[in-house]
This record gives sequence, C-alpha cells and structure tokens, in this order.
Amino acid sequence: MSLSRAIERYLPQIEAELRAALATPHPALAGFYGMMQYHMGWTDQSFQPVQAPTGKRLRPLFCVLACQAAGGDPAHAMPAAAAIEILHNFSLLHDDIEDNSPLRRHRPAVWTIWGIPQTINVGDGMFAAAFLTMGRLAAAGVPARLCSLAASAFQETCLTLTEGQYLDMSFETRPEVELDEYLWMIQAKTAALLGTATRIGALLADAGSDIVAAYREFGTAVGMAFQIQDDILGIWGNETFTGKPGAGDIAQRKKTLPLVYTMAQLKQRGQPAALARLLALYEAAATDAGAIHDVLEILDDAGARRYCEEQVAEYQELALSHLARAAGAPGTDVEGLQALRELALSLVGRQA
Amino acid sequence: MSLSRAIERYLPQIEAELRAALATPHPALAGFYGMMQYHMGWTDQSFQPVQAPTGKRLRPLFCVLACQAAGGDPAHAMPAAAAIEILHNFSLLHDDIEDNSPLRRHRPAVWTIWGIPQTINVGDGMFAAAFLTMGRLAAAGVPARLCSLAASAFQETCLTLTEGQYLDMSFETRPEVELDEYLWMIQAKTAALLGTATRIGALLADAGSDIVAAYREFGTAVGMAFQIQDDILGIWGNETFTGKPGAGDIAQRKKTLPLVYTMAQLKQRGQPAALARLLALYEAAATDAGAIHDVLEILDDAGARRYCEEQVAEYQELALSHLARAAGAPGTDVEGLQALRELALSLVGRQA
Repeated sequence: MSLSRAIERYLPQIEAELRAALATPHPALAGFYGMMQYHMGWTDQSFQPVQAPTGKRLRPLFCVLACQAAGGDPAHAMPAAAAIEILHNFSLLHDDIEDNSPLRRHRPAVWTIWGIPQTINVGDGMFAAAFLTMGRLAAAGVPARLCSLAASAFQETCLTLTEGQYLDMSFETRPEVELDEYLWMIQAKTAALLGTATRIGALLADAGSDIVAAYREFGTAVGMAFQIQDDILGIWGNETFTGKPGAGDIAQRKKTLPLVYTMAQLKQRGQPAALARLLALYEAAATDAGAIHDVLEILDDAGARRYCEEQVAEYQELALSHLARAAGAPGTDVEGLQALRELALSLVGRQA
Repeated sequence: MSLSRAIERYLPQIEAELRAALATPHPALAGFYGMMQYHMGWTDQSFQPVQAPTGKRLRPLFCVLACQAAGGDPAHAMPAAAAIEILHNFSLLHDDIEDNSPLRRHRPAVWTIWGIPQTINVGDGMFAAAFLTMGRLAAAGVPARLCSLAASAFQETCLTLTEGQYLDMSFETRPEVELDEYLWMIQAKTAALLGTATRIGALLADAGSDIVAAYREFGTAVGMAFQIQDDILGIWGNETFTGKPGAGDIAQRKKTLPLVYTMAQLKQRGQPAALARLLALYEAAATDAGAIHDVLEILDDAGARRYCEEQVAEYQELALSHLARAAGAPGTDVEGLQALRELALSLVGRQA
C-alpha cells in the first residue's frame, strides 16, 4: 500500500474518531468544546465549520500504520491514534502560551483569541479527553491485557513530555546548554511521543516485546530526525511554509540544536571570546535584528546547518534499520510496512 | 474509629504515597519536581525541606475511609487516594494562574515565583503523574476489573473538572448567572471530585453498584456543602484563617452563590433597577473599596448569607442520608463509617 492510499483510507477514520472524542456534550459547554474544535482546525472563531489547516495527523498515522505493519487490525488502534493526536494538540495549546507564540498553523493561537486563563483550561480539558479516548480501546475490541499495557505506555509518555518541556524552558534561562542535555530534551519533548505512537500500534497488534521495542525505536528515531528538522526550519525556514516568522527561534532566544552545536564547537576549538560574543548577541536578538543577522553568520561559519542536516539523515537511517528489524517478525504486513516506511521518509526535507 | 485516630493512621500513609509519586527521578529534573514538592508543602523555594501548610488531604481521606467503610482493604485505595490529591493539586496550580491568585496556603503561589510558563507545565506534569499514580492500583493488589472501573471514573472526573472551571470563568464575563447554572458549575468543579473519591473508595472495596452510587452521592453532597461554605468564606471569611484577602471574591468579581442568589431574588421581586445597580457596583468592585462595601450591604439585605448557610446544612443532611443508605450494605465496617461521618460533619462551620 502506498502512503497516499493509506492516508486516503485512514485519515477520514482518524478524523471521525477525533471529532467524536471532542464533540460538544451539552449546549452550555459549546464555548469550551468550541475552543478545542477551533484549535483542531474544524471551526472558525465563531465556531462555524471551516476547512482550516489541521496539521498532518502524523502521529496517529504512525500509530495505525505500525499496528497494520505488525499484523494487527488497524481499527483496534484508532482510539489510541486519536488519543495521541489529542495529547499532541493539548501540548501545542499550552506551548503556544509558554512560548508566547501568536500563530498556530497560520491562524491566531487560541490564547490570543480567548485569553490565557481559558486556554490553560481548554488544554487541561483536551489532556483529560486524551485519557478518556485511550479508555475507548476496550470498546474497540482490544483485550484488557493490551488495553492496560497501552494505557501505561501512554501515561508514562505524558509525564515525559512535560519533563522535556521543562528542560526546554529551563535552557532559555541558562547561558549554556550541552549537546547531550539538548538531545535528552528533544527525545523527551518530541521523539518520545512518536516512539509511543509506533510502540502502542505494535502493542495493539499483540507483537512480541522485541518487535514492539523495534517499532518504538523506529518511531523515536523518526521523532529525533523530525525535531532536528524543525530546529533547522525554526532558524532557516520560510515563513510561507511554516506559518512562523523566519529566524523565529533566534528572536525567541530558544537554544536549539544549531546554536547548541555552535557553542560546543567554539568551546572545543578554545574560542571563549567568540563564545561570549555569540551568547551576548543571542541575548540581544530579541529586540535587535542586527544581532539576529550576526548570530546567523556565526552559525553558518561553524557549519551548524550542515551538521544538523547530517543528524537528520543519520536518525533517518537509524529509524530505517529499526524498521527493518521489526519487519523480520512473522505476520508482518508488507503493505503496512511500506506505507510506514514511506511516511518516515516523507518527513525528511519537508518544508513545514 | 474516631476521625482523629483515622487521620493518625492514614495520613502518613497517604503522604508517603504522594511523596513516592512526586519524587525527583533524575538530578537534571530537580527543578521540575521541586516545584511540585514546593506546591505540596514539602519544601521551600530553594527546595529545602520545610513543614509548610499542605492542605488537609480531605479528598484522599474520603477515598480511603469510603473503602474501609464499604468493607474493603484501605491499602487498596492508597494509590487512588494519592492520585485524587495530586489531581486536586494540579488544578490548584492552574487555578491560581487563571484567577490571578498570588497566595496559596499562606505562601506565594508557584506562578508568582517561577512564572506562568513553567507553572502551566508543572501543572501538566502533576496531571500526568496523577494518572500514573492511578496506574499503581494493580501493583497494590487490586483486581484488573476494579482497576479499569476506577480508571474510567477518574478519567471522567478529570474532564468534568475542566468543564466546571470553564463555566466558572465564563460566568465572570457574563452579566447574569442563573441559580441552576451556578449549581451545575460547582457540582462539576468541586463536588464531582469528592464524589469520585468516595465512589472509587467503595468501588475498590468491590461494593455493589447501588452502594457505590450511595457513596458517590454522599461525597457529591459533601462537596456541594463544602463549596458553598467556601463561597461564604470567599466573601465573609477572615483572612487569618483562609490565607486569602477578605471579600476577595467580590474584588475578583467572581459570581459566587451569595451574588447569584441575590440577583435571583431581585429579579423575582421585580426590582430591575436594584439589580442593575448591583451589577454596576460589582463591575466597579475590582478597584473601588466603597463599591465592595455597598455590594456587601445589598447581599445582607437579600439574606444571602443566611440562604447560603441553609444550603450548606441541607446538603450536609442529604449527605448523611446517602451515607445511611450506604451503611445498609452487608459487610459495612462500622469504624470506617463512623470516621467518614465525622469527617463530613467536620466540614460544616469550618473557618478555612
């Protein structure tokens, strides 16, 4: 099965599962669920139906395709796939407040329309809805034993996500960040959820623990590649594609991989003065476009962009080797595997 | 068993369960879990151990005592009791931001020390930790069937809490709120969690569904009495006891039961001019101490305080009748029941 065929088949099912999970249960709560529905790209600010960008539903696709590839019934993975996407969207709601980001998918972020207090609470509601959606696995015909394993994996990942977000924010208030700390942070903040998507997919196919681990490591490596790609776009991305201002991560003084790598390089080469100048420029970058320009020049000199692109390629290769290991299991569904592989490859070189 | 004996027995166990659930798993995350530990009353702002006010751990006590009263093993309820307390504390973290409250239990609220972005995320971490703690029921020896029922009850309540918080905040931006809307809001925001505490306690004792329902309705009615008492304290409370400024709910323009009742009275008596004056004074109360004084006078004239005190007494009576129904079950533990009854009664007439 080609990726486009898989998307055509599964995306409407995923979207239906998501809409059912976030449907308004009572007219008095129309505003509450309306904010969720706006955030998901289904309505405008007056809660009228629109076709707005929804995001690519990558995580649920990884979950459902991992289930199929591991020989399971994709229908069994639907509630988990939806839960993972709701969890991801909850974290975006809160991230946009925490990062002071006014735009999400080319539209005003929820907090810019309804304010921070309501948006914190809407995020909490989506967090709760994600757990309730995981709870629907039993009704989808999944045996209790697998429901319980999937729920544990999901719970652990929720906590890991917040640990990653903590590290990310704490990096902003520290002058220096080491490479290994940075990789831990993106593993927790981004890669863990993709790893959980493929892990839970394989779990729900009742794959053996080695195979479940291989799918998880595949997803995690894809997540690392994905996040480093995002770091590249955060500095050198084109606003038209990303919906975010160019060099935004520098203006926000986010310490992403290009900067962390450059700092490590300057340290290794014994250039403390250059390192101090870089940090000072970075501090000034919030309000000074000239400083942003100088930072970009230093990153280029250090070869930061090339390094990051190599990292993306390496994690992608690692991902494919884990997938090849997973594919060794008896009962592997070749069509699902092919679509999953194509999905992973489609993430490299993406523009947004 | 007397209540003080029950507190002496169970509180240290609850506290140990809470500390285990929120222990720092890695030195790099000391700041993240440290913020949780500060909020729980275990450390100061430098993360050094202190004995600060922790709150009364009412919800976990209700859970454990309901389990004992229904004939179960209280040890089986400990993870659920801790999960409920963590959930409650997560909601306080976010509520303090949403309500712009600088104090929590006589100390600076987390957001005033570490800022809003970190506090949103710490709350999310506690939310996730609450689910993980519920997930420990199986390890405590609870059969899978009961774990699953308890998890569902817990998940539903999480979503209900956020619905209640939405209604509460949306009332602030509307001129008028009806009595029945208001009661729905406090049911969702406060009473549901106490009802869930006693419901899950009885569930984990494997009580029959009628008895589980009676414990739930008992807890819910206690929660209603508790919240209306809180509304009374929010306007007529003494700052020394509550840790919050007097008449704070008026200055914050919160529409709590005394105001909602007074509005309903003025409407019923056909006094639109008096109603309009009250609403105008309430709008002005944020910055005008004279307006607060005038609002208090109007509430007194309408008999709002007496009405609220009667409501507290009625819900308390309702709670005791549900408890009497629950006590009819064979296998009821009389000592647990007595302590539970005493705990409910201790909430009436509380000062903070």
